[in-house]
Amino acid sequence: MDGLTRREAGALARLISWAEDRDPRIGEVLRRVYPQTGRAHRLGITGPPGAGKSTLITRLATRLREKGDTVAVVAVDPTSPFTGGALLGDRYRMTELAEDDGIFIRSMATRGSLGGLASATDEALDLLDAAGFTTLLVETVGVGQVELDITKATDTVIVVLVPESGDAIQTMKAGLMEIGDVFVVNKADREGAERLAIELETMLDLRPDRDGWRPEVIKTVASTGEGVDAVVEAARRHRRRVTDTGALAERRRSTLLMRLAGEARQLLFERWEEQDRGALEEVLDRIARREITPHDAALDILDRLIAPHSGGEGARRES
Amino acid sequence: MDGLTRREAGALARLISWAEDRDPRIGEVLRRVYPQTGRAHRLGITGPPGAGKSTLITRLATRLREKGDTVAVVAVDPTSPFTGGALLGDRYRMTELAEDDGIFIRSMATRGSLGGLASATDEALDLLDAAGFTTLLVETVGVGQVELDITKATDTVIVVLVPESGDAIQTMKAGLMEIGDVFVVNKADREGAERLAIELETMLDLRPDRDGWRPEVIKTVASTGEGVDAVVEAARRHRRRVTDTGALAERRRSTLLMRLAGEARQLLFERWEEQDRGALEEVLDRIARREITPHDAALDILDRLIAPHSGGEGARRES
Repeated sequence: MDGLTRREAGALARLISWAEDRDPRIGEVLRRVYPQTGRAHRLGITGPPGAGKSTLITRLATRLREKGDTVAVVAVDPTSPFTGGALLGDRYRMTELAEDDGIFIRSMATRGSLGGLASATDEALDLLDAAGFTTLLVETVGVGQVELDITKATDTVIVVLVPESGDAIQTMKAGLMEIGDVFVVNKADREGAERLAIELETMLDLRPDRDGWRPEVIKTVASTGEGVDAVVEAARRHRRRVTDTGALAERRRSTLLMRLAGEARQLLFERWEEQDRGALEEVLDRIARREITPHDAALDILDRLIAPHSGGEGARRES
Repeated sequence: MDGLTRREAGALARLISWAEDRDPRIGEVLRRVYPQTGRAHRLGITGPPGAGKSTLITRLATRLREKGDTVAVVAVDPTSPFTGGALLGDRYRMTELAEDDGIFIRSMATRGSLGGLASATDEALDLLDAAGFTTLLVETVGVGQVELDITKATDTVIVVLVPESGDAIQTMKAGLMEIGDVFVVNKADREGAERLAIELETMLDLRPDRDGWRPEVIKTVASTGEGVDAVVEAARRHRRRVTDTGALAERRRSTLLMRLAGEARQLLFERWEEQDRGALEEVLDRIARREITPHDAALDILDRLIAPHSGGEGARRES
């Protein structure tokens, strides 16, 4: 715990691994630090592969450090150099940052077949928040459902696009128009950047404001640092606005349900496994032989674990 | 049910909506039809946005129909014209297919905050399988975790790439190299297609075979139909191989755990809501005030619902 409050990289890395592995010790750690969470500005950075998210994040982190922030980067994006880069020689970006102990970088991996990625990411962000990092940058690729959910759970969402990633309609179809608080048109020195920025502005004019905030569109060239300051400023303006209006508190609360549901599911299975070892394989066999539907098998598990009560129970089954 | 066995589009559409909405009636429907599932060839088609998946699927469906198959297309991809097209004027592709009653097209939407997309898709595929469609084509965009899970749950995975979507290393980083059984280099008349095909072959030489099958790489121009036959043949060869070796049965079984877990989680929350109306809001309030961690809140829910038993319980909490 001391390592945590001193933002010690080794201690943090170990605790985050506990969260990924669902190590029993993490429950107690989180219980102790939970009251210290909720202070950091959580920024989600999302967009299609190749939009330059990692380069932008490196620039943002550097700029935020210069302004006195401490910064943790969490990469959930499987296409990110932060995630796969060490393997593939893209390491230079990480090295640029890694010298500085006011910066922490971590990629999140999926562990286990029950898909605890969102849950482990939530816990990692709480740990980093409690450790005192003032800004948390969470990188996801903006397509999948889990990834959209993780992004939505941040305070300020930055959607990064490039002219090559398609027009604003493509962006809308991918579900990115609704979630962005700041839209970055990166590689703005390329052809089509101005047109994309105008399209985005037009669509934002048509979109109802979210949380009383009209998203800003900012052109950047992350590779040279152009426009990065403007992104930092826009993110801070957004954070101030939603804090003042109370929208931030609302937004954070609405993500808690997802998190609670994920936890409950994991615990249910852990408990079932404890109580009834071997039962899982048997049930899977029966489903595979098509003797029982997955839905009914799940009902059976709950019936076995949960004390009967009057009314309502099994309503779906009797229908 | 009669409408289902006659592959009647209206009846099927209604039943799939029940699955999406978790309508109580769907449990009984699935129970009746479940023994009739498992016959269709389930093909997952995935790849980055813009790779031409929908055009390829239209061609595949047409070709399969000519060969006497009946085909259902399920689009889980938010960037797909099958999904968003009706809204955005991309409808021509659907119309081309929709005249034929041996073809059924459906897009899946996320409903509810608990993320039942994978579960609803599984149930839709079972319904279509039981209805007698001989080939099910499932389109996802190959990036997110839920989408990768849905794709992995099919019998044969076709990964669609284009020269523009980046090189083979980018593909590997996005997690697509491991899941593909057939790799399609689409828009093969463009520059870079041959190089991408060679890179893919090289990486597949390095990759251990999956299920005793060495993936095939096929070049197509979906817009003209070039190479589409070769894709159909490769998919059928894969299906025959994994059926013969027993790998298909293994593969299907391994996806059942995910499905069972998803069902159990949904049921747990439904039951809690039934038993303890209002409790959810109260618990969310307590988490928001940071009086309790999400993990401990989930433990409390389980403790309240689940009959106590000896041993093991709350191991994580006591740590």
